[in-house]
Amino acid sequence: MLRVGINGFGTIGKRVADAVRAQPDMTVAGVAKRTPDYEAEIARDRGYSLFVAGEDTRPFTSADIDVAGRVCHLVDESDVVVDATPGGVGASNRSLYEEFETPAVFQGGEDASVAPVSFNARANYDEAVGADSVRVVSCNTTGLSRLLAPIDDRFGIEKVRATLVRRGGDPSQTGRGPINDTLPDPVSIPSHHGPDIQTVFPDLDIDTMGMKVPATLMHIHAVNLTLETTPTAGAVRNLLAAENRLLLVPERLGIDGAGKLKEFTRDAGRPRGDIWENCIWAESITVEPTTGGRGDCYLFQAIHQEADVVPESIDAIRAITGIAGKETSIRRTNDALGVGSGLLGIDAKSDVSTHDAASDD
Amino acid sequence: MLRVGINGFGTIGKRVADAVRAQPDMTVAGVAKRTPDYEAEIARDRGYSLFVAGEDTRPFTSADIDVAGRVCHLVDESDVVVDATPGGVGASNRSLYEEFETPAVFQGGEDASVAPVSFNARANYDEAVGADSVRVVSCNTTGLSRLLAPIDDRFGIEKVRATLVRRGGDPSQTGRGPINDTLPDPVSIPSHHGPDIQTVFPDLDIDTMGMKVPATLMHIHAVNLTLETTPTAGAVRNLLAAENRLLLVPERLGIDGAGKLKEFTRDAGRPRGDIWENCIWAESITVEPTTGGRGDCYLFQAIHQEADVVPESIDAIRAITGIAGKETSIRRTNDALGVGSGLLGIDAKSDVSTHDAASDD
Repeated sequence: MLRVGINGFGTIGKRVADAVRAQPDMTVAGVAKRTPDYEAEIARDRGYSLFVAGEDTRPFTSADIDVAGRVCHLVDESDVVVDATPGGVGASNRSLYEEFETPAVFQGGEDASVAPVSFNARANYDEAVGADSVRVVSCNTTGLSRLLAPIDDRFGIEKVRATLVRRGGDPSQTGRGPINDTLPDPVSIPSHHGPDIQTVFPDLDIDTMGMKVPATLMHIHAVNLTLETTPTAGAVRNLLAAENRLLLVPERLGIDGAGKLKEFTRDAGRPRGDIWENCIWAESITVEPTTGGRGDCYLFQAIHQEADVVPESIDAIRAITGIAGKETSIRRTNDALGVGSGLLGIDAKSDVSTHDAASDD
Repeated sequence: MLRVGINGFGTIGKRVADAVRAQPDMTVAGVAKRTPDYEAEIARDRGYSLFVAGEDTRPFTSADIDVAGRVCHLVDESDVVVDATPGGVGASNRSLYEEFETPAVFQGGEDASVAPVSFNARANYDEAVGADSVRVVSCNTTGLSRLLAPIDDRFGIEKVRATLVRRGGDPSQTGRGPINDTLPDPVSIPSHHGPDIQTVFPDLDIDTMGMKVPATLMHIHAVNLTLETTPTAGAVRNLLAAENRLLLVPERLGIDGAGKLKEFTRDAGRPRGDIWENCIWAESITVEPTTGGRGDCYLFQAIHQEADVVPESIDAIRAITGIAGKETSIRRTNDALGVGSGLLGIDAKSDVSTHDAASDD
């Protein structure tokens, strides 16, 4: 059993910890936190050994929360560490992981230079094998990578143009905005997402435009892919339906946005209502012939920013420690968490075939 | 003086009435309303003769609001009527206007078949001259038409791909949503905006994706234009800055979204804080070379859905009645309302040249 330490127990860290515990080949060595807040109570409830991220353990002891030591002890005791500290903090922890020669998985809030490989399981698992550290790309980049990899493999992508309409903040981020506004964010083009995708697909031609809106649940991507060929929309749907971290949302479910998607996954009993998969509206997948025999493919997808990097973080652990190859790791992660299964998996796939037979062009 | 009747005194009708009154060559014959609500009080405050749109005048008289007659009397007394009734209702009023042989200006909420010409002053003024009725295209289509016309004239547009992130409802539409959600709307692609643009530009290749968000102030468009050539971003900025209903928002103003845009126009003293112009973030205008010598141009623009069709409605009145040609009408409308002038006009233009000199590629 691989002992995994998780440094940071916020939105991502607590989900990664629960996901590690669900795996058959790894265990939670402990989690590190800076403050004894409500999430520390969750760590205690789960029975995770709690390490203190700062120098001072007194705030924890005076809150009557047992601590197992400081974060350096956690790093020392772990076979691998997942850094889930706030964006930019991870880079400052790098020397700590190097000091104890503990391989590290960083998150996408860090600059790409934090690790030799920017990682997405579907797109470039093998590049991370044997690396001493890896960076799981951000939620938006993960969502785009999963979508682009199979389409590029099958049809060839000439160019990607994507507008990323991002939630202003997570439900717990009460200090964020906007309220009643729609922001180009950044105003300049491209947004950082295009270059970030190129850390995974170095040769891809992609332009991204970012926006922020007064919503907390999910990001919504309006995606255009100019393909080297002109497949039918049905062929694209079938290709995507066969991917285990893409979920085609069938029209008959009446799901019009992130609210109903999240309601559905909460009804389905998923932990925290998490949606690990990209949710692609099947009805939105459209292909139009354009000049030179190329095809313009369009679709909408929703990305659960709190959850989609969690299975990728688990796979990244296996990739850098070499305990499993790509297909084995992805299958093991999916089986342990229930990715691509449950209510959503069944309904979506059955509907896709019907939809194809009935309305494919 | 052309006597203009306005049928419907809601969001658009009340603005058109005030805009008609501000013109040197037309006067408000009266306005028609269905209910004696707060907007009827505005009509009384403005001194507009109030006609009743339904059969029953008693709700008005019992509210102690003087009425000048019923809507048929208004149509009879008017040289031209602007139909600003709710979307879809205009078509049912067509026979009334025909009965009195009163030329009519419809709004974009009607189907294109309501009138022989779908109108945008910049793009196709002359097509409406002499028509017995005309349809001013919707706020989003107006915003796109104003942007596309000069760019197509100068650089040639091969294809347009636009994501329209629309406000869920106007500030007064308290029953609309979404709240805390981001909706693909419609889920299917293209949205109706692409075909609607083609009522103005029949040969244009355009795909649009629609969304709705929990905001009330303005629509925001993320626009991609594949151009037949590759101008510099500075050349595109200069071209757009010279258009009198496009406003380039300079970076130095620190305007990050619709909220600050509206704040700025309220500070500037515009009636109702209205923004008649497209607001284009100068910094967002980007051109990238793409295959075959073509250029991919990107930009963000904000559209004030309550206001941008108002100057177009005034020009449409002049076009179908033939009282002025295109350039005269546009100049007269702009001068009377203050379109393209005031704080915004001055600041934006001066900044653009600086920006060009400093950073044009």
